Amino acid sequence: MQIQFLGTSAGQPSKMRNVSSLALKLLDEINEVWLFDCGEGTQNRILETSIRPRKISKIFITHLHGDHIFGLPGFLSSRAFQANEEQTDLAIYGPVGIKAFVLTSLKVSGSRLPYKITFHELKPDGLGLVMETDKFKVYADKLDHTIFCIGYRVIQKDLEGTLDAEALRAAGVPFGPLFGQVKNGHNVTLPDGREIIASDYLSPPRPGKVITILGDTRKTDASVRLAVNADVLVHESTYGKGDDRIAKKHGHATNMQAAEVAREAGAKRLFLNHVSARFLSRDIKQLRYDASTIFPNVYVVNDLEEFDL
Amino acid sequence: MQIQFLGTSAGQPSKMRNVSSLALKLLDEINEVWLFDCGEGTQNRILETSIRPRKISKIFITHLHGDHIFGLPGFLSSRAFQANEEQTDLAIYGPVGIKAFVLTSLKVSGSRLPYKITFHELKPDGLGLVMETDKFKVYADKLDHTIFCIGYRVIQKDLEGTLDAEALRAAGVPFGPLFGQVKNGHNVTLPDGREIIASDYLSPPRPGKVITILGDTRKTDASVRLAVNADVLVHESTYGKGDDRIAKKHGHATNMQAAEVAREAGAKRLFLNHVSARFLSRDIKQLRYDASTIFPNVYVVNDLEEFDL
Repeated sequence: MQIQFLGTSAGQPSKMRNVSSLALKLLDEINEVWLFDCGEGTQNRILETSIRPRKISKIFITHLHGDHIFGLPGFLSSRAFQANEEQTDLAIYGPVGIKAFVLTSLKVSGSRLPYKITFHELKPDGLGLVMETDKFKVYADKLDHTIFCIGYRVIQKDLEGTLDAEALRAAGVPFGPLFGQVKNGHNVTLPDGREIIASDYLSPPRPGKVITILGDTRKTDASVRLAVNADVLVHESTYGKGDDRIAKKHGHATNMQAAEVAREAGAKRLFLNHVSARFLSRDIKQLRYDASTIFPNVYVVNDLEEFDL
Repeated sequence: MQIQFLGTSAGQPSKMRNVSSLALKLLDEINEVWLFDCGEGTQNRILETSIRPRKISKIFITHLHGDHIFGLPGFLSSRAFQANEEQTDLAIYGPVGIKAFVLTSLKVSGSRLPYKITFHELKPDGLGLVMETDKFKVYADKLDHTIFCIGYRVIQKDLEGTLDAEALRAAGVPFGPLFGQVKNGHNVTLPDGREIIASDYLSPPRPGKVITILGDTRKTDASVRLAVNADVLVHESTYGKGDDRIAKKHGHATNMQAAEVAREAGAKRLFLNHVSARFLSRDIKQLRYDASTIFPNVYVVNDLEEFDL
C-alpha cells in the first residue's frame, strides 16, 4: 500500500505544485488505485507516474471547489482512450452536485465513455460508513469548510494470520485438506491420533491500516474522530503558524492546527498538503519545523512524492 | 503580434504536449491577448509563459470536445485570484453549449467571479463576421469535424501610414495642429502660402495581418476560404502522410491535406498543431518534411513555442 501525492497546492496551481489530487495505491491488496480529489491537470500528473488510469476504480471527492474537481471530466474522457486495455467500471463518491457536473461536462463535450460510472452522492446527513468491501471500509464525516466538505477514513480490515507451513510439515501434517483446515483456524486430529492446535501454527491476525484523508477544513472535532489511531493522516495546511485568524476566515487550517489534530487523534504520521503557493521552499521547511514541535512525525508533501504505508 | 502555442496535442495530453490552446498576443496592438481553445491544464501552461491572465480579454472556442474546453472553468476561476490587478471583463465565443458548460462548472464549484463574462454563442447558420473592433475583425466559418467546429479568420485592419515628422519639420511646418492635420491625410497651407501635400509626408497605409486559426477538421473548402492570403494558417495535423482514410473517418486531417489547404489558399506560413501522441520526435520531422513537399513554409509547432507574426 502506497500513497502518492499528485497535486499539493491550495486553490491554484503553481509551477511546482498542481491543484489537489492524491492516489492511494492498493495494488498489492486489491489490484486497484483510489483517487482522492481530481483537480485540473490530474491526468497530466498521472502521466508522470506508474499509475495506469484503468486501475483507478474509485474516486473520492472531498468537496466541489474547482481545484478539487475540474480535472474529473478530462481524466474520465482520457481513461476511455487507452486501447487494448479492459474497460473497467468506476465509482465516484462525493457531495451532491458532482454527478451533475460530470454528466454536464461529458454531455456538452459529446464524450461517450465505454465504461460505467456509478455515482454515490453524499449529503451531510447521510455520512458514516459509505463503502464496504471484503477488505476495506470507508467512513466519511463532515468537516468545517466554506462549503460542504468531507473527510474520509479508509480502514483496511484485519488481515488473516499467516500459516507456518514449515512447522506444520515438521509436525508430520501432510500437504492437503488438513493444511487448509489449520489455516482456517480449525484444530485437526491426525491419523496417528495426535491433535494439532491451529493457533500454534498461525500468527495472530494483523491489524489493517487506517488512512485518513481530509478535504479543506478548519480545525474541527470531526477531523480528530476520523483520524483516531490512524497510521496516516493527510491534513491541509493552507496557512502557517500565527495565521489562525485568516485561516478561520477562509475555512482553512494552519500547520499547527493540523499537528494538534494528529496529536489529539493519536495518529502515527502526518502529511501536510494543500499548501499555499505563497510559501517558498524555505517557508516549507519552517512549516514542517513549526508543526513538529507539536507532532514530530510530520512532513510537508510535494507533488509526485510517494510513501509506503 | 505574436502567436504562442500552449497545447499542441490531439485528444489527450502526453508528457511533451498538452491538449489544445494557443495565445494570440496583441499586446503591442491593443494590449490584449486572445486565447483560442482552452484544454485542461491551459492555466498550468500559462504559468510557464509571460502571459498575464488578466490580459486575456477574449477566448475563441473552436468546438466543444473536452480537449478544447475542459480548462475553461479552472482558467476562469484562477484568473479571478490575482490580487492587486484590475478585474477586466472577458468575452467567450464558441458553439452553443459553451455557456451551459461554463456556468454549470462555476455554479457547482461555488465560484463567483469578480469580473463579467459575455458569451457569444455561435450556430452553424449564424457565422460570418462574429466580432469587430476599430482595429480587428474576426470571421468564422463551419469546418468539417465530427461535431460542429469553427475556424476563425482574424483580420487586423489596415494600419495608418506613418508620418515622416523630420521631413515635415525640415519643410518648415511647426509642431502643433498642422502636424496633426497632415497625419490625418489633409493637405495644409502654411502661413507663407506654401501648400503641403499630405501624401508626400505619409507612408501609404500598411495592410494588417491575417491570422487563420482552425479547429479540428477534415480537409474542406471552408478552410481554404478562411485562409485566403493569410499571413499564418494554423491547421491541425492529427494524422500523417497516407493516413487519409482514418483521418477522414475520425473527422481529422493529415499533414499533407493541411499543406494543400495552405497552398490552395495562398497562405504565407503554415503551422501544424493538434499532433497525435503517437508521433515521436523522428516522426515529427517526417511530418514536416512530407508537408513541405506541398507547402514549403511549414512547421510543426511544440508547446510553449512563440512566433513573431
